[in-house]
Amino acid sequence: MRFHTRKWVKPEDLNANGTLFGGKVLAWIDEEAALYSIIQLESKKVVTKYISEINFMSTAVEGDIVEIGMEVTKFGHTSISLNCEVRNKMNHESIVTVDNIIMVNLDANGNPTPHGKTKIEYVKDRLAKKDKEALENA
Amino acid sequence: MRFHTRKWVKPEDLNANGTLFGGKVLAWIDEEAALYSIIQLESKKVVTKYISEINFMSTAVEGDIVEIGMEVTKFGHTSISLNCEVRNKMNHESIVTVDNIIMVNLDANGNPTPHGKTKIEYVKDRLAKKDKEALENA
Amino acid sequence: MRFHTRKWVKPEDLNANGTLFGGKVLAWIDEEAALYSIIQLESKKVVTKYISEINFMSTAVEGDIVEIGMEVTKFGHTSISLNCEVRNKMNHESIVTVDNIIMVNLDANGNPTPHGKTKIEYVKDRLAKKDKEALENA
Amino acid sequence: MRFHTRKWVKPEDLNANGTLFGGKVLAWIDEEAALYSIIQLESKKVVTKYISEINFMSTAVEGDIVEIGMEVTKFGHTSISLNCEVRNKMNHESIVTVDNIIMVNLDANGNPTPHGKTKIEYVKDRLAKKDKEALENA
Amino acid sequence: MRFHTRKWVKPEDLNANGTLFGGKVLAWIDEEAALYSIIQLESKKVVTKYISEINFMSTAVEGDIVEIGMEVTKFGHTSISLNCEVRNKMNHESIVTVDNIIMVNLDANGNPTPHGKTKIEYVKDRLAKKDKEALENA
Amino acid sequence: MRFHTRKWVKPEDLNANGTLFGGKVLAWIDEEAALYSIIQLESKKVVTKYISEINFMSTAVEGDIVEIGMEVTKFGHTSISLNCEVRNKMNHESIVTVDNIIMVNLDANGNPTPHGKTKIEYVKDRLAKKDKEALENA
Repeated sequence: MRFHTRKWVKPEDLNANGTLFGGKVLAWIDEEAALYSIIQLESKKVVTKYISEINFMSTAVEGDIVEIGMEVTKFGHTSISLNCEVRNKMNHESIVTVDNIIMVNLDANGNPTPHGKTKIEYVKDRLAKKDKEALENA
Repeated sequence: MRFHTRKWVKPEDLNANGTLFGGKVLAWIDEEAALYSIIQLESKKVVTKYISEINFMSTAVEGDIVEIGMEVTKFGHTSISLNCEVRNKMNHESIVTVDNIIMVNLDANGNPTPHGKTKIEYVKDRLAKKDKEALENA
Repeated sequence: MRFHTRKWVKPEDLNANGTLFGGKVLAWIDEEAALYSIIQLESKKVVTKYISEINFMSTAVEGDIVEIGMEVTKFGHTSISLNCEVRNKMNHESIVTVDNIIMVNLDANGNPTPHGKTKIEYVKDRLAKKDKEALENA
Repeated sequence: MRFHTRKWVKPEDLNANGTLFGGKVLAWIDEEAALYSIIQLESKKVVTKYISEINFMSTAVEGDIVEIGMEVTKFGHTSISLNCEVRNKMNHESIVTVDNIIMVNLDANGNPTPHGKTKIEYVKDRLAKKDKEALENA
Repeated sequence: MRFHTRKWVKPEDLNANGTLFGGKVLAWIDEEAALYSIIQLESKKVVTKYISEINFMSTAVEGDIVEIGMEVTKFGHTSISLNCEVRNKMNHESIVTVDNIIMVNLDANGNPTPHGKTKIEYVKDRLAKKDKEALENA
Repeated sequence: MRFHTRKWVKPEDLNANGTLFGGKVLAWIDEEAALYSIIQLESKKVVTKYISEINFMSTAVEGDIVEIGMEVTKFGHTSISLNCEVRNKMNHESIVTVDNIIMVNLDANGNPTPHGKTKIEYVKDRLAKKDKEALENA
């Protein structure tokens, strides 16, 4: 699993108990799942269809740094399935784990549409390929 | 199921597709589960332990009104289990359903502690009882 | 008066004195008045025209739960008048009361337009009626 | 009346009709009343006690600039009364007017306490006076 | 330099150290620079092009009041250059200083376009002039 | 330069022109600089002291994904110097570049204090080292 996005736990992220608000973590996960899918599917219109059970293993306090990890578990026809973990950056203690998040690719009318992807791609490879093609066509 | 809290979908609640941001809905659910449990357990220190699978049935757009419903499915020893639905207020179309949210009651040190509750209570009954007791003791 | 929406007082709702920020309460009242009017008038375009005097009776602190109550005092031709109370959910202590909020129904050009409503309606009755009509027309 | 604070109306300030959200304006007014009172009373613990009727004269749209004006109408023993107007910066059209906002000075226990002020003061005069006293005592 | 906009430092403005979050100050400066330029250039489409070095001289804590000052240093052909200071309102201690902020005036296509301004103007003078012209043309 | 944190540009991140609000980008940079320094210095109390000139090269629109990159340019005695770029994730187009951000390590009293670091470290190496030491001491 690759961990990219990091958050610094600030007062606005706390619940009334002074610990990291669960709802905030869920919002972070959903945003990360959305942007990760947008990158992989090269499609701007991707929505959350399903989130499997969510386990809150531990919490975080003000000043902690957390990081959000995503991993593709399956490329469907119109969907992509992700596995997610939110953990404390400094000691790798798990805060939340989610086994399965299903994101669906939509067309302009909001209907599921095939995305044509079957494996993980890296943006730098895509850009290198485009550069190469541009050179060859020059 | 009783629906209490309502939200008016505003620009700040939208994702980049112009529809209700899933992460926002999840944050709303978590806050409602927390406050509902605080009311039922008469305890200020209640945290989310587990959320079962989440189905996104439909979405909402700017200007829609959504309402959040909660129902107790089980009173545990230190926990309470809830069932939740978020729906469009005007046509009752389901937006998100969650079968099982487990909230845990904590003591001052953050450890699970018995809450002593076994059934749904209403605040007005609690207050009426207190008034009655005060009168009898007067 | 019916109390629907509930809020859990979190760090982001506090003023610099550590008590519930008055401006936040006012924003909550305005949103609730808007969505309550939208529901009653079955119109998405409703704006606040007037708010009568606002009394701050008490405050709330982090972790408190407050609920917002609305009551229709008058159905005007293009407007609806509401009475509002924000109170502590657990002890029913009044936090803010507002005797009169006037919301106006607007047409597509932003001009006041008759809403045709004269009494409180419940969404479930509206939906039941629609179902019945659909059956009769089947 | 002196107008100080200015706001640039951004997407997060809009209601679902695409115009400036009334609740946001009320929150802006309450914050300005609080900070204006803190400056005048030289006390950090000041709370809103009462807001007289609020008239929404016009609205604003995304990209508009609004400014908030405050004027002291009375120095009470433990309170200060303010008059407020929010207007469009570019054409001075009135958006909201509030005749009377009463802010109360509190002691450390949250009880009203005399503030000892009887007239408008300017920070630069206070600082000049302090400098002068420091010089004379040198 | 004229100081207009004021902010009351609230919990949501703090970093995890309990002091004013630097990123929040930068966002406040950028908004003030934008709205100040919009007022001076009488153009709604103005964007930040460049910000010179930013010195954090001191910080602020919850409950402090800060004010933001702007001064035009140069009217360019399509741009305006500003000098900025954020300071504590009560003691004028400097929090952040920025020598040079360049804002650019854009046309409808997002390209730099001449703004035609060469000196500071005041809105009240503009409005007085318009009134006078209206009278003369009556 | 390593790019970690990613953001999905949502309505709440836009200025009134409908493009990414510059102030939001600056807040994102400041948060990333803070958390990056906290990780490197293994100190929770780190503040922004200085930000060199900021160039806005291009902007982003709703739905875009941006990523924030950080690179250490110098380990000082009590400080760390960073170089930063914010770019569009999909095409690597530069949005903002900042050559030099100086973060200072503070002690409990808020005074600069040596951090003892001289080179980049990775959390996984630190954790592996701790595990190894624990084994050897077992």
